[in-house]
Amino acid sequence: MKRIADSTVRRLSLYLRFLEDFEQRGLETISSDELAQRGGTTSAQVRKDLSFFGSFGKRGLGYSVPELSRRIREIIGLGREWRVIIVGAGKIGAALAQYQGFAQRGFHIVAVYDSSPEKIGRSWNSQTIRDIRQLEHDTAREKPDIAVLTVPSEAAQAMLDRIVKAGIKAVLNFAPVQLQAPPDVTVKSVNMAMELEGLSFALTNRD
Amino acid sequence: MKRIADSTVRRLSLYLRFLEDFEQRGLETISSDELAQRGGTTSAQVRKDLSFFGSFGKRGLGYSVPELSRRIREIIGLGREWRVIIVGAGKIGAALAQYQGFAQRGFHIVAVYDSSPEKIGRSWNSQTIRDIRQLEHDTAREKPDIAVLTVPSEAAQAMLDRIVKAGIKAVLNFAPVQLQAPPDVTVKSVNMAMELEGLSFALTNRD
Repeated sequence: MKRIADSTVRRLSLYLRFLEDFEQRGLETISSDELAQRGGTTSAQVRKDLSFFGSFGKRGLGYSVPELSRRIREIIGLGREWRVIIVGAGKIGAALAQYQGFAQRGFHIVAVYDSSPEKIGRSWNSQTIRDIRQLEHDTAREKPDIAVLTVPSEAAQAMLDRIVKAGIKAVLNFAPVQLQAPPDVTVKSVNMAMELEGLSFALTNRD
Repeated sequence: MKRIADSTVRRLSLYLRFLEDFEQRGLETISSDELAQRGGTTSAQVRKDLSFFGSFGKRGLGYSVPELSRRIREIIGLGREWRVIIVGAGKIGAALAQYQGFAQRGFHIVAVYDSSPEKIGRSWNSQTIRDIRQLEHDTAREKPDIAVLTVPSEAAQAMLDRIVKAGIKAVLNFAPVQLQAPPDVTVKSVNMAMELEGLSFALTNRD
């Protein structure tokens, strides 16, 4: 398969949400125009995004809603359970540990870590916060797929190095710093200030 | 100015971070190659991104670091203070209200709202959580620029409608639902599950 851009994957996630909404409402087919309108893009873009994965839909009839959502789930890798650890039991970590949307999508928080003696041993929902010193030991045994990194900026690179060395191949980083990882590890960063900058740009460049 | 894609604005925010890092280290010039490498993109893309805003840099000499960062700040609208309100004093709201990175960029939290009698009146850092019933009254007087929406999904559209009616033109939404707003209002959504889906895609489609 060709290398797929991040922006394409994001749109697939978005299309999937629309398709699930259509499924719940009992609709059987959807056109690329409808998907484009909901997603704020063009129907040419929708057709291009879906064409990466072989041919979908019938000309003039649109896409079958259940078939297309099944196929996108498969492409994104949502047919299975993903084991997720949270590294850093601060405010963002707490918000994520309780986020309902994760389990619905097959992302299961299997452990939460911190280095602070005041936090270690405390309970968060069904999790007990673990000592970060257990990370390597636990990872070898429990084989989590994804680490969510919510430590302070100055600790982020060293912690990422540990996570990588422990064998985890996918990291979602919330520290507002650029991190270096080997090419076989995927690091995605969520930077809240950058999200707001998208808005300040929009406000500054209004017609 | 031409309509600029969201992905371009994101890259500009990212370039700005690299430039600030270079400035701190006392470097005077930077090439499109260096920017591309740090940003995980191509130098052709960097030149294209910057060309939207007129001509920068001298062939063979690269870009002046202070000039380029000044210009990008101007483009993104970071030369001023932005007044931000948080609507929804839950876990994500709490994490955002304490996020250091906002004030550094000129985003100032001026108010936090909730509807729960148990939360209203409580203190968060320098903020006292206000009654959501004050939203319209406060907004008319205090004129916030941006609303961060961190209410439960089922309340999000109705709250967005109120925010829009109160006259706010930019909203950062954390509820995992698609929201409808008039064309003169910019709504950006941060969806944590979608971020994880980018990782499950990467893990599923590894070579």
